[in-house]
Amino acid sequence: MIAVYPGSFDPATMGHVDIIERASKIADKLIVAVLANPDKNSLFTVEERVAQLKEITADMPMVEVWHFEGLLVNFAKEMGSKVIIRGLRAMTDFEYEFQMALTNRELNSDLETLLIPTSSKFLFLSSSVVKQVAMFGGDYDKMVPPAVRRSLERKLRQNQEGSNI
Amino acid sequence: MIAVYPGSFDPATMGHVDIIERASKIADKLIVAVLANPDKNSLFTVEERVAQLKEITADMPMVEVWHFEGLLVNFAKEMGSKVIIRGLRAMTDFEYEFQMALTNRELNSDLETLLIPTSSKFLFLSSSVVKQVAMFGGDYDKMVPPAVRRSLERKLRQNQEGSNI
Amino acid sequence: MIAVYPGSFDPATMGHVDIIERASKIADKLIVAVLANPDKNSLFTVEERVAQLKEITADMPMVEVWHFEGLLVNFAKEMGSKVIIRGLRAMTDFEYEFQMALTNRELNSDLETLLIPTSSKFLFLSSSVVKQVAMFGGDYDKMVPPAVRRSLERKLRQNQEGSNI
Amino acid sequence: MIAVYPGSFDPATMGHVDIIERASKIADKLIVAVLANPDKNSLFTVEERVAQLKEITADMPMVEVWHFEGLLVNFAKEMGSKVIIRGLRAMTDFEYEFQMALTNRELNSDLETLLIPTSSKFLFLSSSVVKQVAMFGGDYDKMVPPAVRRSLERKLRQNQEGSNI
Amino acid sequence: MIAVYPGSFDPATMGHVDIIERASKIADKLIVAVLANPDKNSLFTVEERVAQLKEITADMPMVEVWHFEGLLVNFAKEMGSKVIIRGLRAMTDFEYEFQMALTNRELNSDLETLLIPTSSKFLFLSSSVVKQVAMFGGDYDKMVPPAVRRSLERKLRQNQEGSNI
Amino acid sequence: MIAVYPGSFDPATMGHVDIIERASKIADKLIVAVLANPDKNSLFTVEERVAQLKEITADMPMVEVWHFEGLLVNFAKEMGSKVIIRGLRAMTDFEYEFQMALTNRELNSDLETLLIPTSSKFLFLSSSVVKQVAMFGGDYDKMVPPAVRRSLERKLRQNQEGSNI
Repeated sequence: MIAVYPGSFDPATMGHVDIIERASKIADKLIVAVLANPDKNSLFTVEERVAQLKEITADMPMVEVWHFEGLLVNFAKEMGSKVIIRGLRAMTDFEYEFQMALTNRELNSDLETLLIPTSSKFLFLSSSVVKQVAMFGGDYDKMVPPAVRRSLERKLRQNQEGSNI
Repeated sequence: MIAVYPGSFDPATMGHVDIIERASKIADKLIVAVLANPDKNSLFTVEERVAQLKEITADMPMVEVWHFEGLLVNFAKEMGSKVIIRGLRAMTDFEYEFQMALTNRELNSDLETLLIPTSSKFLFLSSSVVKQVAMFGGDYDKMVPPAVRRSLERKLRQNQEGSNI
Repeated sequence: MIAVYPGSFDPATMGHVDIIERASKIADKLIVAVLANPDKNSLFTVEERVAQLKEITADMPMVEVWHFEGLLVNFAKEMGSKVIIRGLRAMTDFEYEFQMALTNRELNSDLETLLIPTSSKFLFLSSSVVKQVAMFGGDYDKMVPPAVRRSLERKLRQNQEGSNI
Repeated sequence: MIAVYPGSFDPATMGHVDIIERASKIADKLIVAVLANPDKNSLFTVEERVAQLKEITADMPMVEVWHFEGLLVNFAKEMGSKVIIRGLRAMTDFEYEFQMALTNRELNSDLETLLIPTSSKFLFLSSSVVKQVAMFGGDYDKMVPPAVRRSLERKLRQNQEGSNI
Repeated sequence: MIAVYPGSFDPATMGHVDIIERASKIADKLIVAVLANPDKNSLFTVEERVAQLKEITADMPMVEVWHFEGLLVNFAKEMGSKVIIRGLRAMTDFEYEFQMALTNRELNSDLETLLIPTSSKFLFLSSSVVKQVAMFGGDYDKMVPPAVRRSLERKLRQNQEGSNI
Repeated sequence: MIAVYPGSFDPATMGHVDIIERASKIADKLIVAVLANPDKNSLFTVEERVAQLKEITADMPMVEVWHFEGLLVNFAKEMGSKVIIRGLRAMTDFEYEFQMALTNRELNSDLETLLIPTSSKFLFLSSSVVKQVAMFGGDYDKMVPPAVRRSLERKLRQNQEGSNI
């Protein structure tokens, strides 16, 4: 089974890593797919996010990191995948994920979405929480993998020298 | 009973049409009221949305299409209506609709809000989903009535010739 | 429009009265329908509940009180009604009401369910809360209409003389 | 991947069949596992439920039907499975499924739970809804597969001749 | 501030201990109040539950363990307390706790309810989960404090020698 | 106990005042802390919001009004407080507050968050609702304290003379 795990990953948190590890036990090949959405204000470029995820998954041979634009159903088709993986943390996640799953099924009835509950110790985590904590000098060491911590430190230094986040 | 069904309708989806059909069986006169909110970034102008809804409801004699600005309670009063109709798809809808219903009752205690569950086959649908699918070349034929499909096609062609959505 | 407002009403609370008053402004005729479910352990008999509701709605000429067994869709058909009214207090209500509305629509596609938000001051109220407060000697005066208060006092006296609730 | 899809299936609905079909596209082998819970009042015996599911899945070669007692984590281990499949219909499902998934992960950290959104046309369906509709003579044809319809008809005839459901 | 933390505690879990520890940092005196509800089927008697909680809180000088019957508002008044403490794990908790808080405020407007989020590692835990895992021979060591583990082992041995749980 | 009640208060509503009154019965000292978030578009400046809250709490000797920037955990530490107070109105509040409480506990494990249910008559209220009603000429008298009403009237006059809100 080839599975696609799509997301913004801006940046990847330990919660995302948790889902990647769980999904890679189930899928034969897991494609982590970074959404290159032109509209959304992101802290990291698509290239930076892909590089971080490649570093994070360097010793997971069945994991590939890609980026994609446009509709997820089209990207999954190109990749030869019929399974979407998404993590679930809470109610608001559930609503959104349910709507996306039904929409994607409407667009391609062959495509299944598997929702995996996030580890309870990462239930509070989101990319926004990480960015907010980092921006205000809080301790985000346990919230992100080392590759992201180094990127965040660099980005924050650049921003302090230049303009704001 | 004169009922008002307010919304942004940017654009109207099959989910909105479903609620219009259900509401028109209950009300003696149904006023579909397009919110002309100056702040919100809309794809279609108020005039375009009113035109689409007039075409959609052309053979429903008890349905009228209006636009309004400002507070819904004031518009309902002008129309001589004491009943607001809203569709419900999911939990997050529920929270928002409940708050709006209680607020409108606070502003005018004579005004009742009737919430109608959307048909299960349209539970995933929203104007945003339609716009996103359309923008990325997905198939939205079953998501909108023909009048909206034609408008969307025109709008997308204009945008490709000119700037982005 | 003939509307049916079904429920257990064991006993009717001020929250139920709130919905009856709101619904009777919308419907031309409102049928309050007491569910005579043989399985459920009820405090009041169906006859007692019908009597209480008749007293409560004595000066509302367009309200009738009935009891019914079996499927609501069949009862509504017999009554010539195509509209079900239900009150909404909270999320858990919403889930249940949504499921019932879709089920009833499945059983009779002509039947619409209108959900009316309960007044915020009765959001906490349920028949179970009233029974629990009454059983332990708490003050439930503002929770039920006078007709129910008198019935509850009688029932509690009988139970103290005989066995427990 | 060997996956276990546990449930009461009392009786199996079209919603359960929907999840079996979706899960059997993902798993190499799918074990439908009927919970033989001694406490719960069930309409059908475990044997009857297993027989119904065997008939339903007769032409799905990769699906096996078993029953189990006790903890799901132990049953999954015996079957050599590390993946639990569950369907999701709504919010209340989500809460319960999330708690069960975290509990099972606590009991066996190797075990993953995959939640699959049910098809929107079955979102309202549950075994209880089917039993209630059947008991009161409503039309449940589209709610259950033919094997269950026949079993239900037999069971209802027996009950009418003998005692109540 | 004297605070009351009411519950069934049948038995107390590590989630309850978590709330006791958090609440005892806020209150000057914390009264853990075991509900002696005659209706509810409990595994442990009120006396057993009080004894377990006394052992659990033996080295917390500001914690007292009581049992109570009837309305919580009356018990809190007798204890001279105006503050109720309750733990929150999830959505369904929230709905129930919100209703209880509003009901208790209705019965005694002086009484405030403080809701404390449970530690994320105990979000899945409930007394029912513990009982189910214990009954089927699963490992519940990390789910309950030692005092409860010993009680549960004794109770399970008794039940195996005699009848079922 | 020193408690911190943080928020945007743009502007303070009767719902906020309700929580301030409830919290000031529990805490020995209550610090109302206005978030000076540079990113967020606010109607009132931090100084205006602090001034409004000082006027609102003028006769509450144990209440102090401060503003803060950056992380709440740092501000609470500076104030010598280990308790955060937040009001709860609804489900969506609950999700957000739960996430914030777990995040703040992660950043400072000594910090407890107490969630207090808002009075049912203010469940619908939010600063956004007030601003929307005010902007469109609706009656918001019962939604805000007099100090805020006067500020809002001034602000709306200025905006009419100058540009839009």
